[in-house]
Amino acid sequence: MRRIYLDHAAATPVSPAVLAAMQPYFGRKYGNPGSLHSFGQEAMAAVDAARAKIAQAIGAEFREVVFTASATEANNLALRSAVRQFKIKNPKLKARPKIIISAVEHESVLETAYDLENDGVEVVEIPVDRKGVVDLKALEKELDARTVLVSVMYVNNEIGSVQPIAEISEAIKKWKRAAGNPKTAYPLLHTDAAQAPAYFNCDVARLGADLMTLSSQKINGPKGVGALYIGPIRPIGLIGPMVTGGGQEHGLRSGTENVPGIVGFATAMEAARRNAAKNFKQVTALKAFFLRELRRAAPDTEVNGEPAAPHILNIYFPNEYAGDLLVKLDIAGVAASSGSACAARAFTPSHVLQALGLPGERIRGSIRFSFGPETTKTELKEAVRRITSSLPSQPL
Amino acid sequence: MRRIYLDHAAATPVSPAVLAAMQPYFGRKYGNPGSLHSFGQEAMAAVDAARAKIAQAIGAEFREVVFTASATEANNLALRSAVRQFKIKNPKLKARPKIIISAVEHESVLETAYDLENDGVEVVEIPVDRKGVVDLKALEKELDARTVLVSVMYVNNEIGSVQPIAEISEAIKKWKRAAGNPKTAYPLLHTDAAQAPAYFNCDVARLGADLMTLSSQKINGPKGVGALYIGPIRPIGLIGPMVTGGGQEHGLRSGTENVPGIVGFATAMEAARRNAAKNFKQVTALKAFFLRELRRAAPDTEVNGEPAAPHILNIYFPNEYAGDLLVKLDIAGVAASSGSACAARAFTPSHVLQALGLPGERIRGSIRFSFGPETTKTELKEAVRRITSSLPSQPL
Repeated sequence: MRRIYLDHAAATPVSPAVLAAMQPYFGRKYGNPGSLHSFGQEAMAAVDAARAKIAQAIGAEFREVVFTASATEANNLALRSAVRQFKIKNPKLKARPKIIISAVEHESVLETAYDLENDGVEVVEIPVDRKGVVDLKALEKELDARTVLVSVMYVNNEIGSVQPIAEISEAIKKWKRAAGNPKTAYPLLHTDAAQAPAYFNCDVARLGADLMTLSSQKINGPKGVGALYIGPIRPIGLIGPMVTGGGQEHGLRSGTENVPGIVGFATAMEAARRNAAKNFKQVTALKAFFLRELRRAAPDTEVNGEPAAPHILNIYFPNEYAGDLLVKLDIAGVAASSGSACAARAFTPSHVLQALGLPGERIRGSIRFSFGPETTKTELKEAVRRITSSLPSQPL
Repeated sequence: MRRIYLDHAAATPVSPAVLAAMQPYFGRKYGNPGSLHSFGQEAMAAVDAARAKIAQAIGAEFREVVFTASATEANNLALRSAVRQFKIKNPKLKARPKIIISAVEHESVLETAYDLENDGVEVVEIPVDRKGVVDLKALEKELDARTVLVSVMYVNNEIGSVQPIAEISEAIKKWKRAAGNPKTAYPLLHTDAAQAPAYFNCDVARLGADLMTLSSQKINGPKGVGALYIGPIRPIGLIGPMVTGGGQEHGLRSGTENVPGIVGFATAMEAARRNAAKNFKQVTALKAFFLRELRRAAPDTEVNGEPAAPHILNIYFPNEYAGDLLVKLDIAGVAASSGSACAARAFTPSHVLQALGLPGERIRGSIRFSFGPETTKTELKEAVRRITSSLPSQPL
């Protein structure tokens, strides 16, 4: 039986072109980029070229891209470092520093924000509307002089809602002007764009973000690589390292560079940006096709939220338990998920679906399907057949 | 011209067997280990098998191995997390927590320890003798109730000295007994074993370490992977995460697992341990051969420290500037280094050679050669020829 993979929001296959670009840096060009000899130079040249490609893809400067081991690490670096540097720069401040996040952030922002409560940080969560879009008015009301950072993801990984990052950036600028301090850097704006680059423009000037997280493994690049864009705030010292040592990544993230991983990530990013318009159209059509077929076969299913992202679709199956249905689907050769892969093993109800205000019964019966440019209509047709033949669920 | 690579302490080529083991996890078995479906299961099975292999190689339990992106990150996790958890557990403690390190640690321990001064930590550096071995008596004298962690590397990366980790462990136990608190966990003992596993027994019980750092890229594994062994202290909560999110790595290091990297690391570790005795003998003979040839051709050269490690040799070239000589050697097709690759671009005098008490002139004229099992006598003979024809240096 041919397995059908409908979990592209969790992981994507490394494309052959990406793997080909990586290959020389394992066994042949294995130098340490920190070494000054020719082996080191060819490794450093590869890292530099990759950094230039990532920078170009997001309209940033070469020096503004810091490679990490994952989007999770990039999110941690943004939040933890912003708070730590704020404290170092304001040692006499008595008021609690504040972080504003949306209620639908990825675990790596959510858990990190709440972990920072151990360091005296106050965390404020901004609710979302029924579409899954952050309430801009509520966010504006929370901005104050204690606010170190606002972190709102670009494309939601569970329901595919797209957040108004540029508008949030404008709101922050407006608040700064109203506070009579238009040139202050705080609050910083961070956006987790892990799910975005294959389909959405990630130009940092257009988004107006100070910090932006990128992932390799979500765009057909290798696992084990991510990046944090750190805008002109870096020279001011508002972001410092979380991992120290040899001073790699402009002193912001030490450790020998993952040369093949970085090369693969940049190759994947180039392809993602090059094909974004085409893929947006194609995957939007795939999603519409899947939804049409599914609604025809199972008319009582419903979409959760309003997925503006082409590749994510969160579906409610009345009278089903997502956990049971996912097991049946897996046995039938269809890979889907009940939400973030990062949270799947915890079996806790999705905080994103909760933020939509959905009742527990609906949350328990919901499944995320996510697609990629490699997905075919034939696969989707067959997937719907396998899904419907797994319904209605038999009591175990 | 065939280039000769004598910088194995900086980076090693990924072996064909390692790369072959990694390959399936890029384009075919690309699931996210956090996913519950079959794609995720095969990825998780690979990570589990790799973890079991690493654990077995060091005599640890499965649950005691935490994968990171580098040895640098593992060192940071050990030091930063130990301090943070100590503070969380002792909120009322007024005395400054203390970290004891040796004077010859890698940058990732040294810089991290001193960065922790920003968080109120006192750092004490223990000197080494002329062989480059830590002064055990001086270390013992520094142990006190404020000491959170002792961090001494196993095999030095610049001069190849081997530290008496088991004896340090005994000294700490003795101090605990003398302090009337034999069961206290503090001070924790951490050892950076990045340079060790290809040649030295890394059994954690034998070494008596609570925390041990491992590197993949130093043992013919891929870059971008490392590990921290965390002994039974973990259940007591003395180590917590530095990167939070989906709760991967037993909640100690979030972020999607670098599946191919982890698989490659474990494959390399298995080979390293299997071949350690053979490689020790072989590379020891290679080093002796190189030294003999070099001393014959350039009799005024001298060895810095007393390298007990077979693969590292730090040589003083009188009347030479290491920087100039390294450039000439690179042009002549010999890759060597003036110390840690992580510090090479900074052009600062080696803190390790300084710790040996060597004069500045000698430090400036010293070069590290490092070998691997792939190194051949023919290469070494030719390398000595190229080295000597680059001497005496012509004024630029």
